Amino acid sequence: MTGTLYLLPTRLGASAWQLVLPAESREIACRLRHFVVENAKTARASLKWLEHPVALRELVIEQLPEPLKPVDIERLLAPLQAGNDLGLMSEAGCPGVADPGALLVRRAHELDIAVRPLVGPSSLLLALMASGLDGQRFAFHGYLPQREPERSKRIVELEKESRQKRQTQLFIETPYRNQALFDALTSACEAETLLCVATDLTLASETIATRRITDWRQRRPASADFSRRPTVFLLFSAG
Amino acid sequence: MTGTLYLLPTRLGASAWQLVLPAESREIACRLRHFVVENAKTARASLKWLEHPVALRELVIEQLPEPLKPVDIERLLAPLQAGNDLGLMSEAGCPGVADPGALLVRRAHELDIAVRPLVGPSSLLLALMASGLDGQRFAFHGYLPQREPERSKRIVELEKESRQKRQTQLFIETPYRNQALFDALTSACEAETLLCVATDLTLASETIATRRITDWRQRRPASADFSRRPTVFLLFSAG
Repeated sequence: MTGTLYLLPTRLGASAWQLVLPAESREIACRLRHFVVENAKTARASLKWLEHPVALRELVIEQLPEPLKPVDIERLLAPLQAGNDLGLMSEAGCPGVADPGALLVRRAHELDIAVRPLVGPSSLLLALMASGLDGQRFAFHGYLPQREPERSKRIVELEKESRQKRQTQLFIETPYRNQALFDALTSACEAETLLCVATDLTLASETIATRRITDWRQRRPASADFSRRPTVFLLFSAG
Repeated sequence: MTGTLYLLPTRLGASAWQLVLPAESREIACRLRHFVVENAKTARASLKWLEHPVALRELVIEQLPEPLKPVDIERLLAPLQAGNDLGLMSEAGCPGVADPGALLVRRAHELDIAVRPLVGPSSLLLALMASGLDGQRFAFHGYLPQREPERSKRIVELEKESRQKRQTQLFIETPYRNQALFDALTSACEAETLLCVATDLTLASETIATRRITDWRQRRPASADFSRRPTVFLLFSAG
């Protein structure tokens, strides 16, 4: 009998687990002894936060190597083949979503290993719900180019695609570049395009606002509002 | 003081709330007296499932009219303006994601009403995590055309776009048409394209499998496997 590969979401920041995880997701995490994680240090902190009942030194915590080679994947999945359950965990949010680890899951399917995703926080999903933008069609694009003019060119492309497909566009940025991305968005987009800025989701400092570009230009947030805080940007052009 | 608009996820099927909702999401739902819901009957069943402490007849449960006119939106948001908190709830999963209700949230932002999304189950997000397909870039397309040749034409377009953008494509179908969609996918797609079929997420009957089209052709699921069960389809072509 092979084990089950559990996909374990974790916190997005400092909040009690009762705020962001169902009791079942936490209980399953606490039963596991084998973990594959994006970052070992963050994972140990997450397991403490979950009040995992076993001493951390007695748990097997393997970090995903970068790049992830086929030989690594076989090694990391070995506990499953030996009949143990295994938990895959990211630094924050849901494993495999805007995150590494998907190749491990893909290989598990090839090996007919059961894969079970657990409910937990995803900044992308929470931002989409809270934005009020179209949730019937949406796309996540990861990071935009860092430099100009490539960044503004890409923003205009995404705005045009949003209008043509009636699709909400989601993207993220490294927190210290949030302000620069915001400035590029308010410069490059049309006045009536809707922009949602969703910061510190699930935290006490959470802020979410959706405004027309023309309104953002007149009510520019202070730099401190999101310049070093995890933020999801969402754009929708009704055309 | 205006109230807060809470976005309340609900169950995807028959499972205890402890499996799919953080204690905090349930507690907030239990403190609310005003709800706007996709379907009043389903919402009452959801509130019973959550063990809401107040008798259902004492709660204000308003159903989202279809179509949703501006005058309806103002009326539905009135409790917030009067200082009451309000919960928005879909038939299943997360409000505003592949669901109505987004326009209500959009108007709340215009009125500077605080919007707070709560953590809960989303079949799209769970399917994406569990598929092992690329989570760095993905798009949800809603429903594909029902008829041929439009449906197969659209499938081929999505496959091509997946290859060009390295983007995972998500879509859904009315459950009784799942089999027909599956057949169209295995006919229209290329042999090496990856297809994930994720059924009954979070339920005891949950099944999730990712295979190459050529493998699906040789291991066709029985019709009963998903023909009338909620299913998310995900497609990825590495090209």
